[in-house]
Amino acid sequence: MRIMVINPNSSTPMTDHIRTELERVKRQDTEVTVITNEGAPPAIQSAMDEAASVPPLLERVLRANQEAFDAVILACFSDPGLHAAREASQILVLGIEETTLHIAAMMGHRFTILTPLASRIPSKVENVKRCGLSEYLSSVRALGMTVAETEADPDRTKAQILNVSRNAMNQDGAEVIVLGCAGMVGYARDVETELGLVVLDPTTVTLKVCEGLVDAGVRHCRNGLYASPCDSNEP
Amino acid sequence: MRIMVINPNSSTPMTDHIRTELERVKRQDTEVTVITNEGAPPAIQSAMDEAASVPPLLERVLRANQEAFDAVILACFSDPGLHAAREASQILVLGIEETTLHIAAMMGHRFTILTPLASRIPSKVENVKRCGLSEYLSSVRALGMTVAETEADPDRTKAQILNVSRNAMNQDGAEVIVLGCAGMVGYARDVETELGLVVLDPTTVTLKVCEGLVDAGVRHCRNGLYASPCDSNEP
Amino acid sequence: MRIMVINPNSSTPMTDHIRTELERVKRQDTEVTVITNEGAPPAIQSAMDEAASVPPLLERVLRANQEAFDAVILACFSDPGLHAAREASQILVLGIEETTLHIAAMMGHRFTILTPLASRIPSKVENVKRCGLSEYLSSVRALGMTVAETEADPDRTKAQILNVSRNAMNQDGAEVIVLGCAGMVGYARDVETELGLVVLDPTTVTLKVCEGLVDAGVRHCRNGLYASPCDSNEP
Amino acid sequence: MRIMVINPNSSTPMTDHIRTELERVKRQDTEVTVITNEGAPPAIQSAMDEAASVPPLLERVLRANQEAFDAVILACFSDPGLHAAREASQILVLGIEETTLHIAAMMGHRFTILTPLASRIPSKVENVKRCGLSEYLSSVRALGMTVAETEADPDRTKAQILNVSRNAMNQDGAEVIVLGCAGMVGYARDVETELGLVVLDPTTVTLKVCEGLVDAGVRHCRNGLYASPCDSNEP
Amino acid sequence: MRIMVINPNSSTPMTDHIRTELERVKRQDTEVTVITNEGAPPAIQSAMDEAASVPPLLERVLRANQEAFDAVILACFSDPGLHAAREASQILVLGIEETTLHIAAMMGHRFTILTPLASRIPSKVENVKRCGLSEYLSSVRALGMTVAETEADPDRTKAQILNVSRNAMNQDGAEVIVLGCAGMVGYARDVETELGLVVLDPTTVTLKVCEGLVDAGVRHCRNGLYASPCDSNEP
Amino acid sequence: MRIMVINPNSSTPMTDHIRTELERVKRQDTEVTVITNEGAPPAIQSAMDEAASVPPLLERVLRANQEAFDAVILACFSDPGLHAAREASQILVLGIEETTLHIAAMMGHRFTILTPLASRIPSKVENVKRCGLSEYLSSVRALGMTVAETEADPDRTKAQILNVSRNAMNQDGAEVIVLGCAGMVGYARDVETELGLVVLDPTTVTLKVCEGLVDAGVRHCRNGLYASPCDSNEP
Repeated sequence: MRIMVINPNSSTPMTDHIRTELERVKRQDTEVTVITNEGAPPAIQSAMDEAASVPPLLERVLRANQEAFDAVILACFSDPGLHAAREASQILVLGIEETTLHIAAMMGHRFTILTPLASRIPSKVENVKRCGLSEYLSSVRALGMTVAETEADPDRTKAQILNVSRNAMNQDGAEVIVLGCAGMVGYARDVETELGLVVLDPTTVTLKVCEGLVDAGVRHCRNGLYASPCDSNEP
Repeated sequence: MRIMVINPNSSTPMTDHIRTELERVKRQDTEVTVITNEGAPPAIQSAMDEAASVPPLLERVLRANQEAFDAVILACFSDPGLHAAREASQILVLGIEETTLHIAAMMGHRFTILTPLASRIPSKVENVKRCGLSEYLSSVRALGMTVAETEADPDRTKAQILNVSRNAMNQDGAEVIVLGCAGMVGYARDVETELGLVVLDPTTVTLKVCEGLVDAGVRHCRNGLYASPCDSNEP
Repeated sequence: MRIMVINPNSSTPMTDHIRTELERVKRQDTEVTVITNEGAPPAIQSAMDEAASVPPLLERVLRANQEAFDAVILACFSDPGLHAAREASQILVLGIEETTLHIAAMMGHRFTILTPLASRIPSKVENVKRCGLSEYLSSVRALGMTVAETEADPDRTKAQILNVSRNAMNQDGAEVIVLGCAGMVGYARDVETELGLVVLDPTTVTLKVCEGLVDAGVRHCRNGLYASPCDSNEP
Repeated sequence: MRIMVINPNSSTPMTDHIRTELERVKRQDTEVTVITNEGAPPAIQSAMDEAASVPPLLERVLRANQEAFDAVILACFSDPGLHAAREASQILVLGIEETTLHIAAMMGHRFTILTPLASRIPSKVENVKRCGLSEYLSSVRALGMTVAETEADPDRTKAQILNVSRNAMNQDGAEVIVLGCAGMVGYARDVETELGLVVLDPTTVTLKVCEGLVDAGVRHCRNGLYASPCDSNEP
Repeated sequence: MRIMVINPNSSTPMTDHIRTELERVKRQDTEVTVITNEGAPPAIQSAMDEAASVPPLLERVLRANQEAFDAVILACFSDPGLHAAREASQILVLGIEETTLHIAAMMGHRFTILTPLASRIPSKVENVKRCGLSEYLSSVRALGMTVAETEADPDRTKAQILNVSRNAMNQDGAEVIVLGCAGMVGYARDVETELGLVVLDPTTVTLKVCEGLVDAGVRHCRNGLYASPCDSNEP
Repeated sequence: MRIMVINPNSSTPMTDHIRTELERVKRQDTEVTVITNEGAPPAIQSAMDEAASVPPLLERVLRANQEAFDAVILACFSDPGLHAAREASQILVLGIEETTLHIAAMMGHRFTILTPLASRIPSKVENVKRCGLSEYLSSVRALGMTVAETEADPDRTKAQILNVSRNAMNQDGAEVIVLGCAGMVGYARDVETELGLVVLDPTTVTLKVCEGLVDAGVRHCRNGLYASPCDSNEP
């Protein structure tokens, strides 16, 4: 099967990073095309960034439909433009945040989302509410490090992820940790081993769920919330 | 005071219509500048339309800040880009849907939203949830008429608004009717008189609340959910 | 327009205080009549106090209707008798708590209510639930000072308001501070300046919203939750 | 044990009716004193009526404390003044609505409240929310008969209770019927036999729960929500 | 009346302990038969234990029906098999957790559940959600002592109960303490006296509510959620 | 990978039916072992049936762990014993109801569950609440046919599924249909084609999600809600 993975920002190193990760976990019979959302901001760190990223992103979703892909994955942990992308698309569209939060809700009593900076905590909490999963949220906690810093200082990053996850477990009752940033992915096993928690990497989890749903022929309904204005025959 | 009212779509007749209405209800000491969101779709009838409307809308919000307006009103009953606009803006930004739903929640036990076409019911229900007011929603009901039809056939429009409002009252327990479309505004008094319900025109309600909040110096907090990435000093 | 503001307790200094505040913020074309609820307890600090305050308060609401006022504001931050007052009144009735909490919900992600004494925290939490806005509440926090103390010691009051607001911001995620007591009003700007939060004075906010709603002809529905027994024609 | 049952309105026939019912179901070792709330309205049919009934009711709650009763029951299906009564009282205070709704929540999946007139449906729905039990509510349905009519025409009353209960079962999924009016009590067994539903008479249920809680020494906490202002030692 | 109380585990000392407690609080005209659930695990400390305890428990519920008991109480603070037991039973079945939490919700603003070990906190939180009472829950807190330890060291147990209850009051806003373990029962009065909280012993509370409901003829509905497959006549 | 699929009832024709379905949709590199839960009731139609099915089911879950399976799927649309199975299992355990409802929540605004008989509607509604997804539920609707009848009369079954799905769409706003019974599976495409809805077969969806999660190394957390008593080292 052929899956288009859109990195919603315009950073090609991030696109490369996602591609490397997904090549490692995809099925042999899956072809993953990871593309950069050129024309979008270099990072999605605000609602303004999200707004700017969506129009070019929708172009790419349409292209995926025209080029006979089987599904599209939006690979930014705030699912920018997810509803619009589903309207635009005949093929399945998954967002990595929504998908991962639903899986997280099954893997333990409560999940905590790790995010780089404290300034994004309120919007993360809002996103969980939008997904209808607020009762599963133990907390959103920030590393207090920028994405750049997580890349520059692996030791501090590792220590900080472990530290914040431990606080989430002990103070908030977290059983599942959702990594809200690509720079955190490499340290998941340490947290699982040292703390006994379950750690989810959203990009990986979503690709694997996506492969399964494509196999099963599951798509979103285009008859209601995600109805395309182009399909409508209403009076 | 000076309030910029942005019609988020690119229809100048709609802009003119809003201007006429607001000129009638504004205070004498209020200067209302109603502008068209050129570059946006001619109507906002889907998440795709919303996505396309937001980038030019944010330009206008920034302009309102630069030109020393006191507040901005987004005059489309789905509040496209509201969160991004607040990030972008030092001055108060109000959306006509969010504002009207909060007022509606105070004026009776339950409110019903009237919308032109049934295809938009799911997204209206989602918007109420996003506002945190789902427990006040009696229903979203459609007229089954396009905006064009409501303009072309006033008699049928009036009869249909009355009919749908009566069903909302009798079957859903509605006490407040929120008019989700500009084409419905002229018929509010009939519903109030004949059914004893309260009918809210979102554009009017929001302008009047906005005048009051500007007087009181109330603005949104730019320290959390609406923090601008430009303001941030985080490490 | 003419607005009757009822101070629900029997303290004339409090009435004078409210009058002074509102004279400062009202529109020129608004006539504000602030009256004491004689016969009520000198302060409303319990459900018992509320119960005692409501019967004389309803008399004054009826008087406002007879004397052709345009609206009534109940100026105590627990909205005593609000539902009964709406039943009794053809004209708009607003409570300062309900109105302010709805505005607060729009100005940031979460709001914290400041209250003088810890003993009133549970009832404040209940009131937010009654308003249907629990998901917007970050916390209710007490100053640990009586109203008398806030009047007697401005320096300590100012420091304590700042201190408690900072805790609300840092520990509870508050972005909006709602001042739940008249004695706190004078210190709002310091909190806004020093902490970057938004601070709402309920009496001011409610007067300004009230002026707008009277302009717009908005009233509560008297056909359902606020139906007057006198209006009923039911079999 | 000695239980004071206050009929919150001033109708002595209603008081007598309650007394007759409770004498039949009380334990032999229980002394039930049913008293009329003189000074209150003759019936509680609105928030205004409730407001007028509470001050004299609180006098009677205080008297029950002075005269060494073991508990107080407020015998009107809207629990007027329940919070204030708990503040005023060292001894246990139960309201028949709150108590019955909690028992109803255990006896089946959903409960429907029967009320005489449709005009009271919104306030009944609000009361269920105040009790925190909205997810157990299937519906509130009206008989469409006044209390006087239920007394005057037993055959029609019986038929109508059966009819409305059947609709609640078939259309709303009701499994438990809560009788929201004294005039309905005599017909409970027919509904149970013919429809297989469970029917609760609030006055009876509450007396029996009250006897048990008095035996067990259970009282409300006077340290938080129901703290009396008189007990407070706060700075 | 005759009430069968089933200790869902197979520990006869626990059965004896429950019997002793209930003999002390039951009415003279109540015959309480406390039996051990032979074949079940010796303690119910996990979902696996619950699963193993239910089949023999249901046998005993059926026996209670055949032997003309008036009601059954499941005396383990996780209500194992409650729904199945109600399906199996014509007579009233009460669980001590569900019953006590509903009473706790009336006795104060928020309740905290004490449980022996921290490992059971998540499942306690889930149970409160299953009862539909999450908004009344202040916290679940663990003593950090096994049941065996609470029996072996009364002084430490008493000190720890007092300490944990104080934290629940000061940090979580608890007004009611629900004792989630038989070993805690003897220390309730100290907590009430020293902290001014209300403390509920689930077994006692449930027996007393049960006596009242049997008197009133209240049973669960067998027409919906608790329908027995044996009763069904569906096509 | 090797996945054990447990049919929680003792019907071998049902086991065979599940096996046939899953052989058709599984990946080539997946080995699916579908086994009958011998010792369980022949069908799971009540809480009593669930209780009886869980102890033998847990034996099989333990066996799957000993025999080095990679995951276990509980293939009955009420997820009997899911929490206990997770406690018992080091390897991933998925229930077909929980998994499918989370996927359904992503594929449209609201989902409707089809169930054979109306008597199971309340327990289906409860299960959705247990999954924390009540806000996504449009309705549970019954075919009014036993499982045997759906097998015996395919034409009537097909017509009835189409009819009930249409009602769910038009009256309840369903966009996704979840087939709550194996006998319904063969008719999914007709509903998708004729009504434009999305139809999910829980067994298929869960197998495909399971394959993906095994690939990704995702398991449930055994440190909290699903902690095994055997693992515990608590004091």
